[in-house]
Amino acid sequence: MPRYTAPTKDMQFILHDVLKVSQSSIPGYDELEPDFTSAVLEEAGKLTSDVLAPLNSVGDKEGCRLENGMVYTPKGFKEAFAQVKEGGWTGLDMPEQYGGQNMPAVLGSAVGELFSGSNMAFTMYQGLTHGAASAILAHGTDAQKDKWLPNMVSCEWTGTMNLTEPHCGTDLGLMRTKAEPQNDGSYKITGQKIFISSGDHDMADNIVHLVLAKIVGGPEGIKGVSLFIVPKVMVNEDGSLGERNGASVGSIEEKMGIHGNSTCVMNYDDATGYLLGDEHKGMRAMFTMMNEARLGVGMQGLSQAEAAYQNALDYAKDRLQGRAVTGVENPDGPADPLIVHPDIRRSLMEQKSFVEGARAFILWGAMMIDGAHRSGDKDADGLVSLLTPVIKGFLTDVGYDMTVKAQQVYGGHGYIEEWGMSQFTRDARIAMIYEGANGVQALDLVGRKLAQDGGKHVMAFFDMVKTFIKDNSGQDEAFDKDFIEPLKAASKDLQAAGMYFMQTGMTNPNNALSGSNDFMHMFGHVCLGLMWARMGKVSVDTLAAGTDDPTFYETKLATGRFYMARQLPATALHLTRIQSGGDTVMALDATNF
Amino acid sequence: MPRYTAPTKDMQFILHDVLKVSQSSIPGYDELEPDFTSAVLEEAGKLTSDVLAPLNSVGDKEGCRLENGMVYTPKGFKEAFAQVKEGGWTGLDMPEQYGGQNMPAVLGSAVGELFSGSNMAFTMYQGLTHGAASAILAHGTDAQKDKWLPNMVSCEWTGTMNLTEPHCGTDLGLMRTKAEPQNDGSYKITGQKIFISSGDHDMADNIVHLVLAKIVGGPEGIKGVSLFIVPKVMVNEDGSLGERNGASVGSIEEKMGIHGNSTCVMNYDDATGYLLGDEHKGMRAMFTMMNEARLGVGMQGLSQAEAAYQNALDYAKDRLQGRAVTGVENPDGPADPLIVHPDIRRSLMEQKSFVEGARAFILWGAMMIDGAHRSGDKDADGLVSLLTPVIKGFLTDVGYDMTVKAQQVYGGHGYIEEWGMSQFTRDARIAMIYEGANGVQALDLVGRKLAQDGGKHVMAFFDMVKTFIKDNSGQDEAFDKDFIEPLKAASKDLQAAGMYFMQTGMTNPNNALSGSNDFMHMFGHVCLGLMWARMGKVSVDTLAAGTDDPTFYETKLATGRFYMARQLPATALHLTRIQSGGDTVMALDATNF
Repeated sequence: MPRYTAPTKDMQFILHDVLKVSQSSIPGYDELEPDFTSAVLEEAGKLTSDVLAPLNSVGDKEGCRLENGMVYTPKGFKEAFAQVKEGGWTGLDMPEQYGGQNMPAVLGSAVGELFSGSNMAFTMYQGLTHGAASAILAHGTDAQKDKWLPNMVSCEWTGTMNLTEPHCGTDLGLMRTKAEPQNDGSYKITGQKIFISSGDHDMADNIVHLVLAKIVGGPEGIKGVSLFIVPKVMVNEDGSLGERNGASVGSIEEKMGIHGNSTCVMNYDDATGYLLGDEHKGMRAMFTMMNEARLGVGMQGLSQAEAAYQNALDYAKDRLQGRAVTGVENPDGPADPLIVHPDIRRSLMEQKSFVEGARAFILWGAMMIDGAHRSGDKDADGLVSLLTPVIKGFLTDVGYDMTVKAQQVYGGHGYIEEWGMSQFTRDARIAMIYEGANGVQALDLVGRKLAQDGGKHVMAFFDMVKTFIKDNSGQDEAFDKDFIEPLKAASKDLQAAGMYFMQTGMTNPNNALSGSNDFMHMFGHVCLGLMWARMGKVSVDTLAAGTDDPTFYETKLATGRFYMARQLPATALHLTRIQSGGDTVMALDATNF
Repeated sequence: MPRYTAPTKDMQFILHDVLKVSQSSIPGYDELEPDFTSAVLEEAGKLTSDVLAPLNSVGDKEGCRLENGMVYTPKGFKEAFAQVKEGGWTGLDMPEQYGGQNMPAVLGSAVGELFSGSNMAFTMYQGLTHGAASAILAHGTDAQKDKWLPNMVSCEWTGTMNLTEPHCGTDLGLMRTKAEPQNDGSYKITGQKIFISSGDHDMADNIVHLVLAKIVGGPEGIKGVSLFIVPKVMVNEDGSLGERNGASVGSIEEKMGIHGNSTCVMNYDDATGYLLGDEHKGMRAMFTMMNEARLGVGMQGLSQAEAAYQNALDYAKDRLQGRAVTGVENPDGPADPLIVHPDIRRSLMEQKSFVEGARAFILWGAMMIDGAHRSGDKDADGLVSLLTPVIKGFLTDVGYDMTVKAQQVYGGHGYIEEWGMSQFTRDARIAMIYEGANGVQALDLVGRKLAQDGGKHVMAFFDMVKTFIKDNSGQDEAFDKDFIEPLKAASKDLQAAGMYFMQTGMTNPNNALSGSNDFMHMFGHVCLGLMWARMGKVSVDTLAAGTDDPTFYETKLATGRFYMARQLPATALHLTRIQSGGDTVMALDATNF
């Protein structure tokens, strides 16, 4: 069975050496001293390694079952969920007013990676709840917040997001679920929603469904969509639970992975719902959840790659097969361990350099979210908005690829369910699809985010890279060659792609949109390149200043050098593809495929 | 449920327009007139679309079961297998002497793609039999051939390959299965083999296991390995079946995919075996099967990509979601079909240009095999030997990626087992692993095949590309720009990588081996680039000469242009990675990962 070990040392490095969180002026960050974050991460690490990770394959094998309209989670989930709640983990970064601990998102994200890495399907129950609570927090009335949030923050009640219908996912304007206004100000919701993660289960007393629906008589299409709070069980005035609402589970979907999470077809039959936010502004309210969810999904890509990498590394060290080409390394054994072989190394280095770079990227993103929310930093808000589709799309695409690479290290054993490596790939696969398929992320990036606020945020990004390069060049020849030069080249490629879109996108939007996927990937590479350059610089400086643990910083530098030399140059290929234009992509008439 | 339609028109184009098989002097090729191959492919197409394809998801859902030592295949497999046997498909390219039809491998491969594309797990039963029969054909005595082949060619008896043991897969020198010589010239085989595809089932009266084992007292390691014929049921002198042999199924493995195939743990307890080929030359004999199997596995990569693409294309045409950025295309509907969106197009074009290029590559490879076997063409033999790891490694890596892309077109529906897209990826995944994991293919290519016969075959490959370029340049400006120039650039990249290996590989073999995976991929791209250039040239010429079906050739050209502009330039990235050397890959001590 796979193991999961919390990468706390690496997280501490990013939080304190790189992001220097406790020195930040963002409100709440002064609490994030190394001892404190270390204690939190160690505690979360214990829970996730010892309790959640062993349930990961149980959830995969057993799945959820629907019996007489009730959904049952796999054996052990209920007890583990109780432990998570008792530990106060579900409200870590939620307001104290509603029972949370008000920790910054940067710490919430680090802890979130541990939960997701140890058991993604399990963690989705609380993850969806967090998203739904955030939407209520952002758009609810005070009365709604008081009514719903305390139990959601504690996960006594969990939450869901209901967008997709059988005939529409991305294009929600086609939605058919309807909401009929009632005299008491509530609505009657009727329709069918599919792919509802954590849609029903036996771990909470109530489930708070956030449901998109069209108010009868409202505008056509996406402009007529509103968001509703639809509880599974009605809540009385005194807060006690009343009768069942008209929300029921039609079936549980059979999926490729995340079997431990109940993905439901939800039927709403005259279910009572309460408008959340304004009439016909449901998409805006939902996007509060979606943006948070997209960062969380990006983290799932990272977390599955990390978990798979840890196990691939163990296997590569344990499994004896063949001899090193440069001479026997394990003379007392019948063969050398896999890790001596250069192609296995290449794969492991690809995995390692990705997960460490991605972790820095996500925690940096979370810090910007904190800046936006806690300090009202508009620039941070704009930048993280620009980078959200990159975090979601790039990290889940590449994270998935990395789980496939980790599985490959096991050879035939990787294909057998017994070893658990298949589950990482099957679970990671969904992250490329949900919360907006990655093609939609690329479209959001190129079609919307690039030009947002007059292109201000993408310019700010390039300025940031330029400033980093300027501030850190010419001090260390090796650092210049290994980090600065590759970053400069990659950033130049990205700018050239942006320029190409500007020059040709107006006359032929297909030129830009045909290159959107490539652009998202090259943007992701530049972000990881920037993270590696930052981590590399910190390591160079720390080694120069003297440290008790030089090996850690030397390893960082070596890993960064690999990324800069072998992975970052992908930007040139993406640029070539983009600059080849949209004509070859769009040449065929649909009937000639 | 997914559909499967035999791509017979494309196969006819490759066989007749591109490879011009019936004009070849290879013995047996004169029979391959268009009418004849068309009739064969149409017939195979009917069987595979109507009978095998509908069983594909049945096999996935039901899997195989072991009860009281007996393995049962999924519902319908037995009847379908009977139909395949009745049709004579199992002996299509086997010698007439043993009941086959002696057709060339080029036709066998085309038919094989249809079988594999419609139902990979099912087709493996006959595929393994074909491989085992080929090994007996190549290494057996006349008596052995007479005893075993007729029933194997007809698939009354099926075959298996037994290499892997729990502690060794790639490094077979560590093998423990032993063979004790008996007075009657037979051996007693004892040991455990794992991952035995088609290891046992209920569709044949007997199973002929080819088992690698060490003769007691023989040399250590790989030099002491011999190959044995070990039947499930003993065969009497008169050919009738006798008692059960000491070969039994320990368990059926639970796998990520190919559930319809029984992957068995096989236990041999004093089982009677007959030496096949020479003592201690088992690896050589097994490689007869392995090389054939590797081409077959490369084809599995293509076939799953083709099947997944067909369905992704259907979905992209059917599913209405969003509107084309360049203006509404389906004004009467609530939305436009997915296929109007540039990023969906990009994905479909990647899939289409891969499967058509890969098909040409494999059929060209099969033609070289025919040249080697039927005409004794040593150059063809050397070239196809060089390209075997490329066909296996590149086509399965990329084929798998393409199934993931096809699945992505479906959005959330791609993740639900009901739609069948998950199965294509799960089934295709094994092809990257078995018959030598792709890392081993890359090692074989760079560490062995490149230098084989003094590098003669790789030089011949480059000469072939150069000759093509020379013979076809300067006649058509557009063709030069769209096809010749990209091919020239990619071929130059490949040569530069080979040169880098030669210059640095001697002093530091890690430089070459760290780049082996990149080299295999760039070689694959150059091969597909060459195929597209050849197909493009034929299309240009056909259009110039006039044709009833200009759309077909124009579509070919457009698809080829896409490959040359967007996919082939990947060689430059691979070259950059290779030329960055092995140091960043090998920098870390194993303990510092």
